[in-house]
Amino acid sequence: MIETSAVGSLVFETHPSHYRHWKLSFAGPVATLRLDVQEDAGLGDDYRLKLNSYDLGVDIELADAIQRIRFEHPDVRTVVVTSGKERVFCAGANIFMLGGASHGFKVNFCKFTNETRLAIEDASLNSGLSFIAAVNGICAGGGYELALACDEIILVDDGTSAVSLPETALLGVLPGTGGLTRVVDKRKVRRDLADAFCTVAEGVKGKRAVAWRLVDAVIPTSRFSDGVQERALARAAMSDRPAGATGIRLGPLSPRVSDDAIAYSSVTLRLDRARRTADVTVAAPESAQPATPPSIAAAGDQFWPLRAFRELDDALLRLRFNEPEIGTVIVRTSGDPALVLDVDRALNAHRNDWLVREVVHFIKRTLKRLDVTSRSFFALIEPGSAFAGTLFDLALACDRIYMLDDSDNPNTIALSPMNAGAYEMGNGLTRLQTRFLGDPGRVEVLLARDAPFDAAEALDDGLVTFAPDDLDWDDEVRLAIEERAALSPDALTGMEASLRFAGPETMETKIFGRLSAWQNWIFQRPNAIGEHGALKVYGREGRPEFDWKRC
Amino acid sequence: MIETSAVGSLVFETHPSHYRHWKLSFAGPVATLRLDVQEDAGLGDDYRLKLNSYDLGVDIELADAIQRIRFEHPDVRTVVVTSGKERVFCAGANIFMLGGASHGFKVNFCKFTNETRLAIEDASLNSGLSFIAAVNGICAGGGYELALACDEIILVDDGTSAVSLPETALLGVLPGTGGLTRVVDKRKVRRDLADAFCTVAEGVKGKRAVAWRLVDAVIPTSRFSDGVQERALARAAMSDRPAGATGIRLGPLSPRVSDDAIAYSSVTLRLDRARRTADVTVAAPESAQPATPPSIAAAGDQFWPLRAFRELDDALLRLRFNEPEIGTVIVRTSGDPALVLDVDRALNAHRNDWLVREVVHFIKRTLKRLDVTSRSFFALIEPGSAFAGTLFDLALACDRIYMLDDSDNPNTIALSPMNAGAYEMGNGLTRLQTRFLGDPGRVEVLLARDAPFDAAEALDDGLVTFAPDDLDWDDEVRLAIEERAALSPDALTGMEASLRFAGPETMETKIFGRLSAWQNWIFQRPNAIGEHGALKVYGREGRPEFDWKRC
Repeated sequence: MIETSAVGSLVFETHPSHYRHWKLSFAGPVATLRLDVQEDAGLGDDYRLKLNSYDLGVDIELADAIQRIRFEHPDVRTVVVTSGKERVFCAGANIFMLGGASHGFKVNFCKFTNETRLAIEDASLNSGLSFIAAVNGICAGGGYELALACDEIILVDDGTSAVSLPETALLGVLPGTGGLTRVVDKRKVRRDLADAFCTVAEGVKGKRAVAWRLVDAVIPTSRFSDGVQERALARAAMSDRPAGATGIRLGPLSPRVSDDAIAYSSVTLRLDRARRTADVTVAAPESAQPATPPSIAAAGDQFWPLRAFRELDDALLRLRFNEPEIGTVIVRTSGDPALVLDVDRALNAHRNDWLVREVVHFIKRTLKRLDVTSRSFFALIEPGSAFAGTLFDLALACDRIYMLDDSDNPNTIALSPMNAGAYEMGNGLTRLQTRFLGDPGRVEVLLARDAPFDAAEALDDGLVTFAPDDLDWDDEVRLAIEERAALSPDALTGMEASLRFAGPETMETKIFGRLSAWQNWIFQRPNAIGEHGALKVYGREGRPEFDWKRC
Repeated sequence: MIETSAVGSLVFETHPSHYRHWKLSFAGPVATLRLDVQEDAGLGDDYRLKLNSYDLGVDIELADAIQRIRFEHPDVRTVVVTSGKERVFCAGANIFMLGGASHGFKVNFCKFTNETRLAIEDASLNSGLSFIAAVNGICAGGGYELALACDEIILVDDGTSAVSLPETALLGVLPGTGGLTRVVDKRKVRRDLADAFCTVAEGVKGKRAVAWRLVDAVIPTSRFSDGVQERALARAAMSDRPAGATGIRLGPLSPRVSDDAIAYSSVTLRLDRARRTADVTVAAPESAQPATPPSIAAAGDQFWPLRAFRELDDALLRLRFNEPEIGTVIVRTSGDPALVLDVDRALNAHRNDWLVREVVHFIKRTLKRLDVTSRSFFALIEPGSAFAGTLFDLALACDRIYMLDDSDNPNTIALSPMNAGAYEMGNGLTRLQTRFLGDPGRVEVLLARDAPFDAAEALDDGLVTFAPDDLDWDDEVRLAIEERAALSPDALTGMEASLRFAGPETMETKIFGRLSAWQNWIFQRPNAIGEHGALKVYGREGRPEFDWKRC
């Protein structure tokens, strides 16, 4: 059973040279991601990853591969996702891993795999990439959910290979990675057909799978490779990926990890386990950053916004998995806000450059990772901070913003054009739009202001929650953090999941809200995880025993 | 502890003459609903309804009152919701009732109270009514959620009365009746202020409550009644309720209840507890129905669509609360579809008549009650059925539709203009639009057809799920029901909640999806309901003990 407790214990960085489960290869504009899971190389030692089933370690490699294709291989235009095993594409998340995992691990595992699949869709939408699921064998549960995240699903027509979501029928749980939502909302499968599909363990194959919109095409075995290749090239021809660009290398982050801190180059995470709080500080660049596409490409992964947000992303993942008892995260920034605003000017001016585009969308995804992290985030704005532009979006992602109003010590925040649309939340709105749903005209007025806001102005304009003066600051902030830390962690998770996403819902917010919440509920129910629950009994002798009450 | 098991045990019909907790009075165009809870008259005998707190019995009266105001009192234009007690408006759902209730009862209780609050908003939107919450004292939790359902919230400014959602802080659960969603989505309270508000047990009062958009106005005690009255009359002046219309009387349904069946005039519910299935049959009218507003008004509650859907609504509620182990509901209709289509013609022609409007919206709400009922619904269409127009929307609300294709026995379905927009689902779409999200053009084509569909046509056009012939029908239907009955009830609940609501999300679907799912999860967590959980410990000695893990 995977249980973690030290901030450094589970790591999320990897590299294709270390992959054990995926093989990444390139041929012209087509990359192939081939799943060939090494059964005995799971993260835990109490299960084997049979039938190309996956655990967190497999998905960390997939997430890494998608990221590297975007940054390191701008020549790639289509990604074919397929299996390296005979007659099996992927059997989904490993059931014995799930059966033995703690509730919290299951929840965080599903959250991470959901983020990986949404990253695939983000690459399709924003990065000129196409993904084809070349389903060359049985494709069940999370395997089909991976296919659903691709732009196109091609199923081999070999008389036996089917796509299926057998979770409800076999395990008494839901497909945990967006399957139900994507079936009806993305692929727009009719709800009654979806109902039939999601309750039949053996799934649907052949022409019926096409007729029900579950896959886009079926191709007989003999023509499968050629057919997939044709589609991959046809899709590549439609891509807006740059011609002749050279990728940048995503090097290791190499943080200094101690028992209660992780120090990266621009991000520091410090833990106070006794108070169940963490401090995250993001430092502004220490010097002027490159401001043209060639110089940004030359800086590569050392370009400050990419470096800082890669570090923040890594810190958030470690916090989620390794430090479940840390309930409140204090978010600070430091350094020169003018340098942040200079970076924002460059990002905004060159948003059509392929690399800048990747950097901006990476920042966006990191902020979204924070949005769905079930910890309370309080931003503290004090003299010496650098909450400007992109870094102010970090404050806007927090549950509350405290800003010190001290007339003796200047303390300001600033907006930039990057707050105006670069970092959309999952609900399709910017953080300013979500914040001012009740007063939408204010967003433009605030963005039009070409000057920083002091604390009184920021409070007045609704950009911060509270602005205590220097007499009250210490007590007010301390009390707020202490009070937060005393509240029920579960109630806070549900509350934050409700308050953070006002406004429209999208497929993405439905996956993290509606679907994940139901899944989490089911993952708590004796019918799934009790001694005779379906998830526990699977693969053993005997059948599940259910409490038949519907609620 | 309230646990029910016989289909007749909890009843949902009442009448103002029997109210124990609400007082309904009328003065010109203004009705006043005054909450004055009788502490010792709760449904259960192990709690007292102190501080105007409520249980299901209190809410059944409220739901009845809203309904009767719509049908029986067309002269009413504004409803003032207030309290008959000094210094307390309403303390919300009774905590000791919740603490002692089974999980299933809590879930169904919250679902019912949510439906009641949505019925208030439906009356505001569609019935020309305005609701003013005249908050004349402390207003906590479900009390504030009731106020949030009103169009306008006026809080007394007496130095102490506050609005609050103390659930997270005091009980370790969420406000269960849409509070979080309405705060940020309806009232558009800024998310950081909402965060602060929802974690401070004592709530917010006075000018700050107005500034944070939590209430619309505060009025000092001395001017409170006059101020509320002024607003009530101003709102009444803007109403489109009919002038000089006479209401109809909603008489008792008087079903014949036996151990395993409830027989109403047009609806029959039969239970097969051994197989955990129920059969619901809705009979078409037996004779031509009135077709003009005066004759419809003369028929009153005996007008078939009103009568039949009131019966169906009552049957659904009894099923939910009294028969938790019935997992699958078989939906049939019987009688002459031509008479149903005649009714639809009348409903469609006179949709602007106040009473017809009420009937149509009542049907809509009943179908929505089915949409959020956590049972599987299979419609069976056989010769002799009457799945036409409005009754076909009932089939469209089901998870699957089976239609017998028997060339020897004619069997058809038909659409009517009432399928084109009268019965919007919670997601804002019609059931046809939701069904054909992937092929939206088809909706108009199907609606344009002025002839019935036989089974082959219905299957071809996607209006039914399966159309077995007479050789296969019995086995295929029996197997489908048996297989359904064998699945995990919890997984089915989560699956159906995901598949039924494809397309856009609205405040309403967010409440039943996102918010309720999180609430249900929290209601299962030891931090709420364990021996030392916050909900269990409340009001006793000692403080809750939490497992601090966040997930």
